[in-house]
Amino acid sequence: MKRGFGSDNHSGISPEILDAIAKANVGHALAYGDDEYTERTARLFKKYFGDDTETFFVFNGTGANVLCIDAMAGSFNSVICAETAHVNVDECGAPQHIVGCRLVTIPTSDGKLRPEMIKPLLHVFGFEHHSQPKAITITQSTELGTLYTLDEIKSLADFAHANGLYLHVDGARIANASVALGATFKEMTTDCGVDVLSFGGTKNGMMLGEACVFINPKLAEDFKYRRKQDLQLCSKMRFVAVQFEAYLEKDVWRRNAEHSNAMAEKLYEKVKNLPNLEVVYPVQANGVFAKLPRNVWTKLQEKYFFYDWDLDNDVVRWLCSFDTTDEDIDDFVAELKKLLK
Amino acid sequence: MKRGFGSDNHSGISPEILDAIAKANVGHALAYGDDEYTERTARLFKKYFGDDTETFFVFNGTGANVLCIDAMAGSFNSVICAETAHVNVDECGAPQHIVGCRLVTIPTSDGKLRPEMIKPLLHVFGFEHHSQPKAITITQSTELGTLYTLDEIKSLADFAHANGLYLHVDGARIANASVALGATFKEMTTDCGVDVLSFGGTKNGMMLGEACVFINPKLAEDFKYRRKQDLQLCSKMRFVAVQFEAYLEKDVWRRNAEHSNAMAEKLYEKVKNLPNLEVVYPVQANGVFAKLPRNVWTKLQEKYFFYDWDLDNDVVRWLCSFDTTDEDIDDFVAELKKLLK
Amino acid sequence: MKRGFGSDNHSGISPEILDAIAKANVGHALAYGDDEYTERTARLFKKYFGDDTETFFVFNGTGANVLCIDAMAGSFNSVICAETAHVNVDECGAPQHIVGCRLVTIPTSDGKLRPEMIKPLLHVFGFEHHSQPKAITITQSTELGTLYTLDEIKSLADFAHANGLYLHVDGARIANASVALGATFKEMTTDCGVDVLSFGGTKNGMMLGEACVFINPKLAEDFKYRRKQDLQLCSKMRFVAVQFEAYLEKDVWRRNAEHSNAMAEKLYEKVKNLPNLEVVYPVQANGVFAKLPRNVWTKLQEKYFFYDWDLDNDVVRWLCSFDTTDEDIDDFVAELKKLLK
Amino acid sequence: MKRGFGSDNHSGISPEILDAIAKANVGHALAYGDDEYTERTARLFKKYFGDDTETFFVFNGTGANVLCIDAMAGSFNSVICAETAHVNVDECGAPQHIVGCRLVTIPTSDGKLRPEMIKPLLHVFGFEHHSQPKAITITQSTELGTLYTLDEIKSLADFAHANGLYLHVDGARIANASVALGATFKEMTTDCGVDVLSFGGTKNGMMLGEACVFINPKLAEDFKYRRKQDLQLCSKMRFVAVQFEAYLEKDVWRRNAEHSNAMAEKLYEKVKNLPNLEVVYPVQANGVFAKLPRNVWTKLQEKYFFYDWDLDNDVVRWLCSFDTTDEDIDDFVAELKKLLK
Repeated sequence: MKRGFGSDNHSGISPEILDAIAKANVGHALAYGDDEYTERTARLFKKYFGDDTETFFVFNGTGANVLCIDAMAGSFNSVICAETAHVNVDECGAPQHIVGCRLVTIPTSDGKLRPEMIKPLLHVFGFEHHSQPKAITITQSTELGTLYTLDEIKSLADFAHANGLYLHVDGARIANASVALGATFKEMTTDCGVDVLSFGGTKNGMMLGEACVFINPKLAEDFKYRRKQDLQLCSKMRFVAVQFEAYLEKDVWRRNAEHSNAMAEKLYEKVKNLPNLEVVYPVQANGVFAKLPRNVWTKLQEKYFFYDWDLDNDVVRWLCSFDTTDEDIDDFVAELKKLLK
Repeated sequence: MKRGFGSDNHSGISPEILDAIAKANVGHALAYGDDEYTERTARLFKKYFGDDTETFFVFNGTGANVLCIDAMAGSFNSVICAETAHVNVDECGAPQHIVGCRLVTIPTSDGKLRPEMIKPLLHVFGFEHHSQPKAITITQSTELGTLYTLDEIKSLADFAHANGLYLHVDGARIANASVALGATFKEMTTDCGVDVLSFGGTKNGMMLGEACVFINPKLAEDFKYRRKQDLQLCSKMRFVAVQFEAYLEKDVWRRNAEHSNAMAEKLYEKVKNLPNLEVVYPVQANGVFAKLPRNVWTKLQEKYFFYDWDLDNDVVRWLCSFDTTDEDIDDFVAELKKLLK
Repeated sequence: MKRGFGSDNHSGISPEILDAIAKANVGHALAYGDDEYTERTARLFKKYFGDDTETFFVFNGTGANVLCIDAMAGSFNSVICAETAHVNVDECGAPQHIVGCRLVTIPTSDGKLRPEMIKPLLHVFGFEHHSQPKAITITQSTELGTLYTLDEIKSLADFAHANGLYLHVDGARIANASVALGATFKEMTTDCGVDVLSFGGTKNGMMLGEACVFINPKLAEDFKYRRKQDLQLCSKMRFVAVQFEAYLEKDVWRRNAEHSNAMAEKLYEKVKNLPNLEVVYPVQANGVFAKLPRNVWTKLQEKYFFYDWDLDNDVVRWLCSFDTTDEDIDDFVAELKKLLK
Repeated sequence: MKRGFGSDNHSGISPEILDAIAKANVGHALAYGDDEYTERTARLFKKYFGDDTETFFVFNGTGANVLCIDAMAGSFNSVICAETAHVNVDECGAPQHIVGCRLVTIPTSDGKLRPEMIKPLLHVFGFEHHSQPKAITITQSTELGTLYTLDEIKSLADFAHANGLYLHVDGARIANASVALGATFKEMTTDCGVDVLSFGGTKNGMMLGEACVFINPKLAEDFKYRRKQDLQLCSKMRFVAVQFEAYLEKDVWRRNAEHSNAMAEKLYEKVKNLPNLEVVYPVQANGVFAKLPRNVWTKLQEKYFFYDWDLDNDVVRWLCSFDTTDEDIDDFVAELKKLLK
C-alpha cells in the first residue's frame, strides 16, 4: 500500500517497541496482568501521573474509552461530549451498548467543549425522566486536530466537579498534545483535575494497547471486573505492558509525537496557500483538515488513501504519523498541486 | 517467575510468530482489517475450514466466544453449555452482559455434553416466560482436558439442527484436539456440522489473537458491526493476521500442540501411580487434573504456580505448554514426590 | 390538587373505561394475554389498522416505544429522531439501556423531521465504525403540539423504505392527531407506509395501557419474548385489553380527543393576543406552548402545576385533557391576565 | 373460561380494590407518583415494614424482581438463587438482559436455599474471571408452595451479610406466607435482616401492581431513575397506589391469603390419599404439586387449565386463588377421581 496520510494507525511499530516485545519473550509469566512486567509498568505510570493514580492496560482505544465511561457512569446517566467526539461517531454505539448510558452531544466549531455550552444541560438533575448527567468527556488533541489549553481543561474540570460530574479525557493522541503544548502528561491531566484518562499508544508507534489511567482512584474500584467482562483483558499481558514501558522510558512517545506534529506543520505550510484549498481548523497536532473541490480530492484518493471528513462541505482529513517522511509530503503535495490546477 | 504448569497462557510467543510480526512491520497498511495481510489470512482460513466459511480476527478468547454467541443468539434466547464451560465460569458474566442472554448449564462428569442431557431443556419452545434455546456451545478440547470424538460432535450438531439450534465450539485449544484425534480442523468442525468456532491461537504460541470462524456464513452477516461495538476490532490488524498466517502455514499450531500434548502425557505417566494421588479425568490433550492431599498441593504451590480446580474435592490443574521441557516435568515430579511422602 | 394544564396524564379514567374494567371482573381468565378479552381486542385492532397488522398490549408509553425500537433495531443500529422526541429526552435513556442502540437526533423548529434532514446521516452505511441507521421515529402529534400531514408521513415512509429503514410513530397522542387531521388511524399510518406504531391510550382517558401495532407484521416475530423480557407483560391482561376495547368501540378515543383539542384551541384563542405572551408553535392538537416573562409563569405555577419547556427561552407548556372544562380555562386565563399586567 | 387451579393470576380483582380505584378517579393528580395518593401509600408501607424503609410501586412481579436485583448488583456480579426460582426460569432472562448479571443457580429438593449450599460458591471473591457474588434471592412462599421459617430467613440474611451479600425476597405470594406462618410482614423481612423485598399484590386480589420495599434504604438511592429507565414507571400512579392502600388497610391481603391457603389445604386433604397420586411438596401456602399418571392429568387438562410443572416426572401444579370456592374443589376432585380410576 502506498504510504500516505490516511491515519496514524496506518504506520507500523516503532523499533524500540518491537524490541521490548522480543526481550520480554523469555520464560513463563503469569497471565492476565499478574506478572512482574505489568506490575512494573503500572507502577511506572505513577511517575508520569502521580502517586495516587491507578493504571490498567486494555486492548484498544474504543475499549479504553468505554471502560472509562463504565467506571464513571451508570446506565441511567448521561455523558456529555462534543458532537465530533470519537465516542459519539466512531465507536458504533459501544458506550450505549456496553454501558447503556446516553451520550448528550454538543455541536462545536473546533471540537472543543466549554463550560458555558454544558451549563444548559444541567437543569435535569433529580428529574427521573431525564438521564442524569454524570461525566464530561473531551478529546486531547481533538478529533479535529485542535488542542485544549491547560486553562481550558482546568476550567472544565472545575465546572464538572462543581456540578457533581467527572471529567474524562480521550487521550488517543495525548502525546501529540503534550509535545505541542510543552506540558507534561501530569500537567495536562492530574494537575488540571482530570478524573480519568484513556492514554493512547497505538496511534503513536505501539503495536496495540491503551491504558486507562485513573487519576481519581476511587473510580478504579471495580475496574478489573469490568475489564474482564467487557472483553478487554489480555492473557499474555506482559507483551502489552512492555510496549508501554519502552514507549515511556525510551522517550518513544515524545520523539514520535514531535515528529508527526512537525510533519503536519510542514504539510500545512506547503498547502495553506494553495488555490481553492482552505485549511479549516488550526493545525495544532498531527492533523490537517482541508476543504477543496470534490473532483480534486476524489482524484487524489485514487493515489492516496485518506478519509473524507465532512462530505457536505468537502472537507478531508490528512494525518501524519511517526514514520511520515519529507518525501511523503513532497510527493503528496506535488500530486495535489497538479490536481488543483 | 519459575516455569511451571499453571497455564498454557504463561508461556510466551513462538519464534515463528514473532518473526512474522517483525516482517509485517514495513510501510503503511490500512487499519481495522482492510489491509492485504488480513485479507490474505482470512482467505487462508477457507483452506482449513472450507470455501464457504468466513473468518474474522479478534483480540482474545472471551471476545471470540462472546461474539460467536452474539451472532447466534438474541437477548431472549438461552445458550446451553456444560457447567464447567469457560463461557459460564471464567468470563465474569460477559455473555450475560454483552449479549443479555441466559446460559443454561448442565452438570457433567467429564466436561462433555450429550444430546440426551439437552433434550429435557427443549420443552420451553414458544413459551414466552422461558428464554428460548438457540445454541449449544461445547469446548474442544474441554476445560477438563477431555475430547469429543468426531461422532460426538456430529451427533450434537445433528441434534442442534433438528431442534432449530446452532452449535458453537470454543476452540481455545482446538489445535490440541486436532493432533490428539488425528483429525483436521475441518473434519472436526465443518464436516461435523459445527456452525461457528472460536479458533484459539494464544494458548498455543501466539502473542494474542483469536479467530471467529463462521462455518455457517449467514451467522456472520452483522459480525463486523458487533466486533467494533463489542470492543474487539484491532486497529493495526495486520499484526494479528500475520500471526495466524505463520501459525497455520508454518505448522506452528501442529508442532506446538503435539509437544504440549506429549508433555501432558509424560507428566501423566510420571504421576499416575504416585501414592495418594489420583488423576481424575482422562488425559487426552495438554492438561492433567489430579486429586491429592491439600497439604501437598498447597506446599507445592509455594514453588510452582498452578490453580486449584475444585476446592471441595482437592483437585488441581496442571497444564503443559508448547515450551514445556522434559526438565520442567522432571523437576516438578521430583518435588511432588518429595511432598507426597 | 388544583385542576390545571400540567399534563394530559393528570386527568383520571373515562367512565366508560372504568366500567369496562368492572364488567370484565368476573370469573377466571388465562393470564398474560391468553384470555378471550385480549384475543378479541387484539383482533379488533385489525379493523382500525388493517387485516395484516398484529397488535400487542403493554403497560406504558416508554415501554411501547422501547419495544417498538427493539423490534426494529439491533444494538449496532442507530435510530433517527427529532431532538425533542420523547424517546430522546423523556425516557431516561431507556432505548440505549434496553436496546443498546444509538439515537441520532436532529434539531428542528417544530418537532418534525423531513427527509432532507435525514439524508446527510446516511453516508455511513457499511462503515463499521458508525452505528448503522435502521429506523426513523416520529411523534404524531408531536411533543410540541404540532402535526405531520399525511403527505409528510408518507414522504418519510417512502424515504425510509428507499434507504432500508423502518418508520415508527410514537402515537402517545395519536387520537388527538386523528381528530385534528380528520384522518382515520389507518389513513395516518398503514396507508402512509408506517411500519410500527406506539398506540397510546393513557393520555386520553385510559387508566393505563399502550399498544404496539405492527403494521409490518414481520417485525412482530419475536415480540412476545421481548415484551416479557423487557418487563412489559401484564399478568391480568384482560383488564388492559378491555380498556382498549371500550376506548375504540365506544368512541372514547374520539370524544376525548375532540374535547381536549377543542379546549386547547379555546385556550389559544384566549391567550394569543395577551401582551408579553407569544404562542411559539402552531396549536394543532391539545397543547399550547407559550413564551412569557419568567416572573409571570413562576408566579402562575404557585397556583397551577405546569412544566417549563424551554428554560433558556422562557417557554412553558400547557396541555388540555379530556376532562378540561370551560371553567378551568376561564379561571386559568383570568389568573394569567392578572399576572401579565 | 372454566374456573380452576391454573394460577392465582387467573382470578380477577377483589371488590375493595376496584372500589378504591373508582374512588380515586376524581379530579387531577400529578403523574408518575408525585401525587398525594402515592405519597400516602408509600408512607403507609413504613407502618408494615419499619420507619427506615422506602417503598416504590411498579407494574409487575418480573419488574419488581429485576429492579430489586438492579439495585443490589452490577453487571459483573452474580446473584444466587434456587434453580426453581421465578427469576431464573420464568422471566425470559430479564435479569441477564436488564442487569447484565449472572444468576448462579442451586438445585434444591424443596425450592429453599440454605447457607451451606451457598458457601462453596464464595471461593471466587476477588478473582476477576468469575462474576462476583453480591446477592442471594429467595422466594417466600416458594415456587413449590413451601415456606421458609423465620429462623431460616434470618440465617440466610446473617450469612449473606457476613459475606458482603444482600438478601432479596421475591414476595409475589408473601401474603400467603404471612398468614401461614402467623408472622407479620415485618417479622418475616425487616426483623430477619432482609435487604429488599418484591412485595406482590397481583396474585392475591389486586388488578396489577407490585412494590419494591427497600428495607435497606441505601439500596434505593438510584431507584427512581432505574424504574423509569427499566420501563416500570406508571404515569397515572394513583391508581396503583390506592390498590395497595386498600389491600393493606382493608385487610384484603389477609382475608384473601387466608382463603387461598385454606382452599389449598382443603384440596390437599381431598387428594392426598387418592390412588396413583402423590403430593410431592409440603402444602404450606396456596399450591398443591401432585405426581400422577400422564394420561390422567392430560385428560384432566381438557376440562381444566393447569400447568405441568415437571414433565420428566409427571408433576403438575394446582394453585388456589382468593376466589376459589368449595364447589370449585369438589368439582375438580370429582373429575380427578373419575380419571384416576
